[in-house]
Amino acid sequence: MSSKWLNKVRWDECGLVPVIAQEASTNKVLMFAWMNRDALAKTVELGEAVYWSRSRKKLWHKGEESGHIQKVLEIRLDCDEDVVLLTIEQVDGIACHTGRHSCFFSKI
Amino acid sequence: MSSKWLNKVRWDECGLVPVIAQEASTNKVLMFAWMNRDALAKTVELGEAVYWSRSRKKLWHKGEESGHIQKVLEIRLDCDEDVVLLTIEQVDGIACHTGRHSCFFSKI
Repeated sequence: MSSKWLNKVRWDECGLVPVIAQEASTNKVLMFAWMNRDALAKTVELGEAVYWSRSRKKLWHKGEESGHIQKVLEIRLDCDEDVVLLTIEQVDGIACHTGRHSCFFSKI
Repeated sequence: MSSKWLNKVRWDECGLVPVIAQEASTNKVLMFAWMNRDALAKTVELGEAVYWSRSRKKLWHKGEESGHIQKVLEIRLDCDEDVVLLTIEQVDGIACHTGRHSCFFSKI
């Protein structure tokens, strides 16, 4: 990815974009997180999801400790260029820190 | 939905939560928007997606002008209780203001 594309992204006032991670094989939305410019560049470089941890205020290479890496198959930007949609392959099928497949396990 | 559940949502410092709208029939992620407490309560009441327009600073009943209503079939909350996932039926199959099915039409 050229840096030209990175400049196209409309980062918010904190320099972040919302990111949705959807699993390729099931089409399930597994999680939601944030990226800054470095995180998105690193994601493209590695082919693995790297987010920005707002609580820890640092890059977060998803799965670096747990092994639950997200291989990135496709990256899309929405019409306003301020939201990213990742199509991923979830290693071990576990995206959530609770050990579940998806973070969206609570249904009203 | 009881107001108890509304109190469970971890609204951000602006009183908002990110919302992902996924189409039931295709599993496609169609759009991303925001809700405040009133928007979520109204969404449940109507069974149709009502967002908070950050640009216009008012409730936005999706499709009220275009007719492209989103019927809400299911509402999920993520593990941190700060992101909402809607399963919707998209009237006319058009979610994007550009006339497209999904807002995520730009692929890197």
